[in-house]
Amino acid sequence: MIPIDDTPLCRDGKVLILAYDHGLEHGPVDFDEVPESADPERTFEAATHPAVTSIAVQKGIAEAYYPSYEDDLDLLMKLNGTSNLWMGEPDSAVNCTVEQAYDIGASSVGFTLYGGSNNEIEMAEEFATAQKDARDYELPVVMWSYPRGQGLKNDTAPGTIAYAARLALELGADVAKVKFPGSQSAMEQAVRMAGPTKVVMSGGSKTSDRAFLEDVKETIDAGGKGLAVGRNVWQREDPTRILDALEQVIFEEASVDEALAAAE
Amino acid sequence: MIPIDDTPLCRDGKVLILAYDHGLEHGPVDFDEVPESADPERTFEAATHPAVTSIAVQKGIAEAYYPSYEDDLDLLMKLNGTSNLWMGEPDSAVNCTVEQAYDIGASSVGFTLYGGSNNEIEMAEEFATAQKDARDYELPVVMWSYPRGQGLKNDTAPGTIAYAARLALELGADVAKVKFPGSQSAMEQAVRMAGPTKVVMSGGSKTSDRAFLEDVKETIDAGGKGLAVGRNVWQREDPTRILDALEQVIFEEASVDEALAAAE
Amino acid sequence: MIPIDDTPLCRDGKVLILAYDHGLEHGPVDFDEVPESADPERTFEAATHPAVTSIAVQKGIAEAYYPSYEDDLDLLMKLNGTSNLWMGEPDSAVNCTVEQAYDIGASSVGFTLYGGSNNEIEMAEEFATAQKDARDYELPVVMWSYPRGQGLKNDTAPGTIAYAARLALELGADVAKVKFPGSQSAMEQAVRMAGPTKVVMSGGSKTSDRAFLEDVKETIDAGGKGLAVGRNVWQREDPTRILDALEQVIFEEASVDEALAAAE
Amino acid sequence: MIPIDDTPLCRDGKVLILAYDHGLEHGPVDFDEVPESADPERTFEAATHPAVTSIAVQKGIAEAYYPSYEDDLDLLMKLNGTSNLWMGEPDSAVNCTVEQAYDIGASSVGFTLYGGSNNEIEMAEEFATAQKDARDYELPVVMWSYPRGQGLKNDTAPGTIAYAARLALELGADVAKVKFPGSQSAMEQAVRMAGPTKVVMSGGSKTSDRAFLEDVKETIDAGGKGLAVGRNVWQREDPTRILDALEQVIFEEASVDEALAAAE
Amino acid sequence: MIPIDDTPLCRDGKVLILAYDHGLEHGPVDFDEVPESADPERTFEAATHPAVTSIAVQKGIAEAYYPSYEDDLDLLMKLNGTSNLWMGEPDSAVNCTVEQAYDIGASSVGFTLYGGSNNEIEMAEEFATAQKDARDYELPVVMWSYPRGQGLKNDTAPGTIAYAARLALELGADVAKVKFPGSQSAMEQAVRMAGPTKVVMSGGSKTSDRAFLEDVKETIDAGGKGLAVGRNVWQREDPTRILDALEQVIFEEASVDEALAAAE
Repeated sequence: MIPIDDTPLCRDGKVLILAYDHGLEHGPVDFDEVPESADPERTFEAATHPAVTSIAVQKGIAEAYYPSYEDDLDLLMKLNGTSNLWMGEPDSAVNCTVEQAYDIGASSVGFTLYGGSNNEIEMAEEFATAQKDARDYELPVVMWSYPRGQGLKNDTAPGTIAYAARLALELGADVAKVKFPGSQSAMEQAVRMAGPTKVVMSGGSKTSDRAFLEDVKETIDAGGKGLAVGRNVWQREDPTRILDALEQVIFEEASVDEALAAAE
Repeated sequence: MIPIDDTPLCRDGKVLILAYDHGLEHGPVDFDEVPESADPERTFEAATHPAVTSIAVQKGIAEAYYPSYEDDLDLLMKLNGTSNLWMGEPDSAVNCTVEQAYDIGASSVGFTLYGGSNNEIEMAEEFATAQKDARDYELPVVMWSYPRGQGLKNDTAPGTIAYAARLALELGADVAKVKFPGSQSAMEQAVRMAGPTKVVMSGGSKTSDRAFLEDVKETIDAGGKGLAVGRNVWQREDPTRILDALEQVIFEEASVDEALAAAE
Repeated sequence: MIPIDDTPLCRDGKVLILAYDHGLEHGPVDFDEVPESADPERTFEAATHPAVTSIAVQKGIAEAYYPSYEDDLDLLMKLNGTSNLWMGEPDSAVNCTVEQAYDIGASSVGFTLYGGSNNEIEMAEEFATAQKDARDYELPVVMWSYPRGQGLKNDTAPGTIAYAARLALELGADVAKVKFPGSQSAMEQAVRMAGPTKVVMSGGSKTSDRAFLEDVKETIDAGGKGLAVGRNVWQREDPTRILDALEQVIFEEASVDEALAAAE
Repeated sequence: MIPIDDTPLCRDGKVLILAYDHGLEHGPVDFDEVPESADPERTFEAATHPAVTSIAVQKGIAEAYYPSYEDDLDLLMKLNGTSNLWMGEPDSAVNCTVEQAYDIGASSVGFTLYGGSNNEIEMAEEFATAQKDARDYELPVVMWSYPRGQGLKNDTAPGTIAYAARLALELGADVAKVKFPGSQSAMEQAVRMAGPTKVVMSGGSKTSDRAFLEDVKETIDAGGKGLAVGRNVWQREDPTRILDALEQVIFEEASVDEALAAAE
Repeated sequence: MIPIDDTPLCRDGKVLILAYDHGLEHGPVDFDEVPESADPERTFEAATHPAVTSIAVQKGIAEAYYPSYEDDLDLLMKLNGTSNLWMGEPDSAVNCTVEQAYDIGASSVGFTLYGGSNNEIEMAEEFATAQKDARDYELPVVMWSYPRGQGLKNDTAPGTIAYAARLALELGADVAKVKFPGSQSAMEQAVRMAGPTKVVMSGGSKTSDRAFLEDVKETIDAGGKGLAVGRNVWQREDPTRILDALEQVIFEEASVDEALAAAE
C-alpha cells in the first residue's frame, strides 16, 4: 500500500475514474443508444472535466488516444479484460504489462479479480504479479473486485461486496472498485472491511440521474472515496452535466438535490 | 498504435495484403483447382504486382522464399497458425516470435485471435505478448480478428464483425482483418468501432470477379482501408488480372465496372 | 533447515504466531461476533503482547500496517492464500514472493500445503520454490500443513496429522503448523514424525479458554513448540487475557489452571 | 530454411538417416527378433556404412555411444519422444534442448509433430522453439511429420501425407520425414507440397528387401531425397547388405533389381 | 552419461543406495513396526556402514541431517516425490533443484519417472531438465524407473521392467532403479536393455533375509550393479546385520548362504 493521496489517482483524497473499456467487455452493443459514444475521443473529452481524476481504458485505446490527452488527463491502464463472447467460468486476459502501461504514460493501473470463479487462483496470481510490478513502478493499483462464478448466487449481496472489499485489502490493492450493495449500511460494512484501501463504487448500467446520484451519495456517506463510472456518464447525451453533479456529491459533499440543481 | 501510414504495410494509407498460409490452415486441398498454386514462388511473383503492399506467410515459407524477394516485396510474418486436422475449440499455435520475424526481414506481423473461443483468454495473452514485442521492434500488427467457437452461431453477423473490429482496437492492433459482414452499412459499423485501427476485408473463399470486387468496393466505400486476400487471387488462373482490378478499387477509387474494364 | 532458534520467529525455542489472514480465507463473517476485530490494527496491537513472536498476515495487510509496527513486531508473511468463495479441490494462490516479503520486512514466511488435494503436486512445487527462495534470504519457513481433499475423510485423524508433520520435515519446512489431532499421544506421534522441524498447533475455531488451553498444554507436553492462533485470540473481547494465559502455558510451562489464574 | 546441402545431414543432396529410438518409442519388443539389436553399438557400427549420412537417437543413447563414434558418424539428435505405455491423444516429451544436442556433438536435430492430435498446438509451439534454437546453432531440422489422433482415420492416406509434408515446409523444417503414402504419384504430391523442404520416406515396420526397396525407389523417383530408416535395417540379420542396396537406390539411382544384385 | 565408476555413487563399480524417503511417499505408517525408524538419524547411522555408497533422501531430511554426516556419507538427493494421500494418475512433485541439491552437498541425484502414467510426458520433461542440470554440475543421475498408471496391469512383468530399464538408457540416466522382475533371466533382459546404464534393484517391501538376498543375488548374477533399498534395511531391528550380508552379495560375490553366515 502506498500513500495514494499524493498520486494523480486522487484529488483531495477522492477518486472519480471514468471507465471506458466496455467495447472490449460488452462489445459495440453498449454504444447503440448513443452511437457517437463509440468514438473514444468523446469520452476522452468528457474526461477533461475537472471532476475526473483518471480515465480507465485498455492498452489499445490508450496507445491510440492518450498521447493527445497526456497533458490534460491521468491514465489508469486496465491491465486485464476480455470479451463476453466465450463461455465458461469467469476469467480475464492480461492484455498489458505494468511496464508497458508505464511506458504509455499511465499513472495507475487496474485489474479485475473474479473472486469465487473457479479461475480465482490463477487470477489472484496474475494480480499478485501486477501488484508487485506496480510497486516497482510506484503506480497505485485499483482492483475491480467482482465476485462471480459457479458458487455465487448474488453478486451484489452485502456479504459478497464486503468480502470483495476485503479481498482488495488482503491482496494489496490501493483502491477497491465494488458494486453498490444496495444500501448505505451495506456499503459501510464494505468500507470497514477494506481498512485503508479506498472503496469506490462501480457505476453499473445506466439509470436515472437521481437514482444514480443517490447510490453515489450513499457510498460517500458510507466512507467510500468515490466512483469508477462508465455507462452512467458516456451513455448520457450530455456527459458533462452528470459529471457536474458527481463533482458536487463526491468532492463538495453536496446533497443529491444540490448536485442536481448545480448541474441544471 | 503507431503511425502505420509511414510504414511499408501501407501505401497512400491503403493496404493490400496477399496472404498465403492456406497450406498450413487448410492443407493441400486449397491447391487442387490450380495445382501450380502449391508452389509458393508463384504467389511471391504475383505479390510483386505494384498493388500488393505485403505478402503474408508463415515462418517456414518466409525463410525459404523471402530472401529472393526481399528487394521487391514487404513481408508480413503471420506469427500464429495451425492445421485443420485436429478437433476442439478454435486455437492457434504461435509458430514464430517477433524477434525471429524481424530477423527474417518482416516489416509487419499478423496474429489470429478467435474471440469467442473458449481459448480466447490464452490467445489474447499470446497476442498481448506479440503486440508488446512488435512495439519494441516498431513493426505494425495486423489482427486476424475472427470470432469463432462454441458460443457463436454466425461468424459474419454484423454485430459479430463490429465486435471483432473493436477487439482489434481495444487490444492494440494497428489493422483489423475481418470477414465481410454482408453489406456496406454493416462494414461501416465495423469501421466506426475500430476507430483509428484500419479495417481490411478478409478475402474469403473464391468467388466471381464481380461479386468479389463488389464486396471490396463496399468495404472501401465504408471506410475500410483495403484487403487481405489469398484464394481470390492465387486460386485464379491469372492472379495479375484480379490484382489490376483490385488496384483500381482500392487505390484509385474506381467503380467495379471501371476496375473490371481496366483488368481486361 | 536453518537454526531457527536464533531467528526472530522463536523465543526460547518456542513459537507463538498470531495469525490474521481470515479476512481472505473465510471472509468478513469471521469478524461478525466482535466487529472491531475487522480492523487489522486491533490485532497488530494485540500482537505487541510479549508472548507473541510473530504476526502472520497476507501481503496487503502487511503493506498497510506493518510499517507502523516494524519496531515492535516480527512479521511472518503468509505467501499463499485464497478465498472460500470458489469450488473444487483445495488450492491456494501464491500472492507474494519471498523477495517481496523480505522487502516489506518479514523475518519469516508461511505457506499452506493441502497434502491430499488433487492439486498437491502443484502446491508442493510452489512450496519448493518458496522454500528455496527463503533459504536465499535466510528466512525461516512455516508450513501450514493441512491434508485436505477428495481422498481424505478426516482431516484431524492422528495418522493424518502425523503425515502432515512428516511432510513438513521431508519438504524442508522449519516449522509445521498442524491441527490438534485430538490427544496428547497423537500430538506426540506428530512431533516424532517431524524430527527437528518444530511442530506448532493450529488454533482452530473459537472455543472456551479452558478447552483451548488444554489443547495447547497437551501440545507443549507432547513436545510441540507452540501455537499459531487466530480466532481464539482476536475473536475474544479481550485478546490480552488469553495471550497472558498462553504465555504461561507455552513459555513458563505452567498448568492450565495456573495459566487461567495468571490471566484473571 | 538453411542451405542444408552443405551440411553433414546430406551427401550429394541426399539423406539416409539410420534411426534408432525404438527402445523408447516401442520398447524392447522391437529387439525380440534379433536380440543383439538391443545393443546400440551394433547400430552405431552399421551407421558407419558410407551410405548413412546420420544416426538418429535420443539423448541418453547419444551421450553413451556417440563419443566413440564422433569421428566416423554424424549425429542427428532426436529432441522429443515418448514411450507407448500411456494412453491419450498423441504427444511427445521434449527430452533434449538444442543447446544440449549441440554440446553432445549433433550436426542436426529431429522433432516429431503429431499434426491432427489434440495436442498439436502445444507440439507445434515446442517445435517452433526448437526450430528457432536450431537456427541459432545452425543445425538443420528434420520434422518427423506424422498426422495422428482422434480426428484422423488413415495416417497414410495420400492427402494426409501431402498435408504432413506441407506442415514441414510451413513451419520451417528443412527435411520432412513422412510415411510412404502408397504410390509414387502420391509421394510426388507430397514432394510438391514440401517445396524446398526435402522429403524423406519413413522406413516403417520390417518388410521384404524387395518391397522395402521398391517403396524407397518410388520415393526417389518421386523427387524424395532419401530415407530415415530403423527397423528395416537393424531388424535384419545383416544390416550392411540392405544398406548396400539402399546406397544404390538413393545415391546411384539404381533400379531395385540392380540394387538387390549389388547387395548380394 | 558420465563415467560414474569414478564418482562417489559407486564403489568398485557397484552401488548400494540406502533410501529413506518413505515418510513422504508412504507416510508414518511405514515406521509402525519399528517405531525408532521414524528418526532419520537411525538410518543415517546405518548408512555409515561401509557397504552403503549413498543415502537417498528428500531435501528437508538432507538439510536437517546431512550436515552432521557429510564427512561420513555420500548424499543422493531425491529431486521429486509426493505423498500417497491424493488420487489420480501417478505423478510426482519436483521438490528440489539440482542447484539446491549441489549446494546441500549431494554427490548424485535421483528422479522418479512413472512411465505409462498419463503424466509421463510432463514427468519426462521435468526429468530432462534435471538431467541437463545434473550434467552441468557433474552429478550422476539415478532414475527410479517405475512404469505405473491406467494403461499398465502388472508393474513387475518382465517386459515392463525391461522397458523401464531401457527408458533410463534412452533418456540419459546413469543408473536405473527397477523393481525385481521375478527371475534372474528377466533381470538379465533388463540389464541388456539398459546397456551402459547400471541397473540396480529396488528393495521393495520388507521380506525375509533369505528371500530378499536371493533377489539381490539374482540381480547381481544378472549383471545388475547393486541395490537401492529402504524398508528391507531400516524396517529390520538390526539394519547392520542385513547390510553385512548385502556387502557380501554385492561387493564380494558371495552366495546367499555365505552372506547369511557372514552376517550371523
